[in-house]
Amino acid sequence: MKKPALLVSVILFLSFFSCASAKSTNAESEIRSALDKQVAAWNRGDLDGFMDGYLQSAKTSYVSGDSEIHGFEAIKERYQKRYGSDTTSMGNLTFSELNILSLDKNSALVTGHFKVTGKNKPDATGVFSVVFVRNNGKWKVIHDHTTASHT
Amino acid sequence: MKKPALLVSVILFLSFFSCASAKSTNAESEIRSALDKQVAAWNRGDLDGFMDGYLQSAKTSYVSGDSEIHGFEAIKERYQKRYGSDTTSMGNLTFSELNILSLDKNSALVTGHFKVTGKNKPDATGVFSVVFVRNNGKWKVIHDHTTASHT
Repeated sequence: MKKPALLVSVILFLSFFSCASAKSTNAESEIRSALDKQVAAWNRGDLDGFMDGYLQSAKTSYVSGDSEIHGFEAIKERYQKRYGSDTTSMGNLTFSELNILSLDKNSALVTGHFKVTGKNKPDATGVFSVVFVRNNGKWKVIHDHTTASHT
Repeated sequence: MKKPALLVSVILFLSFFSCASAKSTNAESEIRSALDKQVAAWNRGDLDGFMDGYLQSAKTSYVSGDSEIHGFEAIKERYQKRYGSDTTSMGNLTFSELNILSLDKNSALVTGHFKVTGKNKPDATGVFSVVFVRNNGKWKVIHDHTTASHT
């Protein structure tokens, strides 16, 4: 291979990996931003804003303890019944120990811990696994498996 | 558009959807087969065979109750400690209400219920969410979130 051809190959090779890496970082930062938006919505008592993090689909599912809920509307109803839709009833939500794992171009898994404090009940803590899919360019939660424990 | 061109377009259109549908069905049947193999291995007291359903990777994770385990070997160790590696200690495993959802070309989500009976402990039942990825052509579990309850 002549030098210019080799140089072009090296540049193409490096561009490919730089692009792949940028894509991965973008997905991770977009997902982190989606989670941040959910937390911000929760903490201003905006249940609709929080629910916007989930994919509005009958396929979206939620598992917690012994309950398994299918469909965006049913999941929203469960949150509404359990937490209401204002800052006093919803309290303050924080996520920690987030671990984002890209599965494929349009899907990712996030595991983490949550804590809800300051509402009219004991603090709620636990672990969750959420599956994100990229739908129309936006990352949305299509599945949420939460295991809650109380402190 | 002339008739032959239209016909070719219709055939190509139908072939595309038939192919997409076949791929989806293949993925689902391959995943169902992977789960069947895990159950069969469990029920002959073959812990290694059961663990073969998980991706042998440090990225593979398992969440159950308040414990969050990262890495294939650590997950295997947890099963070994809790269930041993023979039919008497492992008992009989069944899955039910399986729901397979394709996420992307190489990733899928499965939710379902499990029951372990006949071992030297009370029956164990619960719900699980597992994330499958296609790795070197084989579907393997990269994440398992299990919520157990006892009957």
